[in-house]
Amino acid sequence: MRNFSDRLEDSMRRTGSALCVGLDPDIDALPDVFLAEASRANSTEDFICSALKAFGLAAIEAVRGSAAALKPNLAFFEQYGVGGLRALASILAAARESGLPTIADAKRGDIGSTAEAYARAFLRKSTAAGKIIQDFEADALTINPYLGFDSVEPFIKACADYGKGIFILCRTSNPGSAEFQSLRDESGTAASMKTARWINSAADRALGASDLSAIGAVVGVTHAAELAVLRSAMPRSFLLIPGYGAQGGTAADAAKGFLPEGRGAIVNASRSILGNLPKSASKDEISALITSRAQSAREDLSQALRLV
Amino acid sequence: MRNFSDRLEDSMRRTGSALCVGLDPDIDALPDVFLAEASRANSTEDFICSALKAFGLAAIEAVRGSAAALKPNLAFFEQYGVGGLRALASILAAARESGLPTIADAKRGDIGSTAEAYARAFLRKSTAAGKIIQDFEADALTINPYLGFDSVEPFIKACADYGKGIFILCRTSNPGSAEFQSLRDESGTAASMKTARWINSAADRALGASDLSAIGAVVGVTHAAELAVLRSAMPRSFLLIPGYGAQGGTAADAAKGFLPEGRGAIVNASRSILGNLPKSASKDEISALITSRAQSAREDLSQALRLV
Repeated sequence: MRNFSDRLEDSMRRTGSALCVGLDPDIDALPDVFLAEASRANSTEDFICSALKAFGLAAIEAVRGSAAALKPNLAFFEQYGVGGLRALASILAAARESGLPTIADAKRGDIGSTAEAYARAFLRKSTAAGKIIQDFEADALTINPYLGFDSVEPFIKACADYGKGIFILCRTSNPGSAEFQSLRDESGTAASMKTARWINSAADRALGASDLSAIGAVVGVTHAAELAVLRSAMPRSFLLIPGYGAQGGTAADAAKGFLPEGRGAIVNASRSILGNLPKSASKDEISALITSRAQSAREDLSQALRLV
Repeated sequence: MRNFSDRLEDSMRRTGSALCVGLDPDIDALPDVFLAEASRANSTEDFICSALKAFGLAAIEAVRGSAAALKPNLAFFEQYGVGGLRALASILAAARESGLPTIADAKRGDIGSTAEAYARAFLRKSTAAGKIIQDFEADALTINPYLGFDSVEPFIKACADYGKGIFILCRTSNPGSAEFQSLRDESGTAASMKTARWINSAADRALGASDLSAIGAVVGVTHAAELAVLRSAMPRSFLLIPGYGAQGGTAADAAKGFLPEGRGAIVNASRSILGNLPKSASKDEISALITSRAQSAREDLSQALRLV
């Protein structure tokens, strides 16, 4: 498989977009049309699976021309149990089919054989009795590095060997993010910068034809000054930038996370694209609304990127 | 529901054990008898679910008299996709039924509404269209605090409101754990101690009748000196101590993590109890072997605890 950074750049070029759409579904808030379709289901599990799948597939269809990637948020599927995860598997398969790169936002992190199992779950295929399992296989995964860089190794290997990508948490967008991410080592380097330097030193291990690496970082737009500094420390890594839109970050702030020519980063928006949809609208109306929101976000980002 | 720390103490008293058994299944390494039972399944998903469930239920039956808790490791179920998670739901239900407390070892951590969704997934019930979902409901959950203490709040609330427990990563047992967990704040306090102090300050928010808190910590036995110091900093919290057995920690080291009278901690063993089982043994032979291993670990720990 081609390097993830090349595939993501292709998708950005094809759609003319630096937008990543986050999928964080709340069943009770979904438009009625998705619930009505599911109401023929025989069990709660089937109802959940059917409603989430119908919504996820409609979302893919509506954003695929104007978003460079889709970021399903694992928590919002896990909260619905087996039915939620069955829907996730179908949504990931549909995105694969349609050529829309997916980032499993799972923020996994663990040691040794457990990290290897998480890498198999999301970035590789597992086998059992000779059968292949790829239910949760995505193009990329978000990673929490707090257990140490040895805990990240199995994911790096999946990037190098299977053309996958990772985004390692470097600086998150929430108010409390400094409590750990700004702690310092003996030389005075903050955790976020230490992470950035490590990511940069690992970039070579999964470099694409475009000279960008599949080993990337999550840096929130809500700390715009730090975003620029961390961007400079990782000149070959893709950044995934959350905090735009509903969380208050602007396109101009997000632009600080990009390389020249609008390369090397994608900006996530979740609620502002797929949240607060009208309860009683038709499927066509909902699709048109989602598409129009995604196009607006794409334009907003493109305009800001032309100015830097 | 009674406070988690009281329920865990009850279980320790009933079994005379400070042992927590980790469940990290690898299907291809399971004894043939569990695979044979599953081989009548109609699909790979059903085969996986059936094999993992048969093994998990046998494990519960074999350890319930000699282990105080069961710790299913989420990664090892997620790697097998939907079938793996269907098995996990059955195993958690069986443990609930048999009164064996469960700790979902998921090391989740995220911000705002995402943290709330993870709390619903593992510690509360979710609802969709008025139906209740509790597939992955466990008694306790492991938490990664790297996104900040605001990210831990939804889990604390689940402890206080629903009688659940959490174990926040404080110092993990792997070689690279110091890279982040020993970074320091301006006053020179290391991340691990900062976490311990925060846990101690939150202990009151989910205190049991026994004066122990449901807000606990993970501290590896492989750093025995630090274990004793962190223990002192959290005099009312339950510790979950990994690294005993296959990872090289001894019972005497683990004992440093306990309060007087062998209270306030449990020691995890995974591979040394449920790993490396004979491929071709009968179900009864396997059960007897697991029971005997768990009893030996219980005795080993009890003996070390009598000496302190």
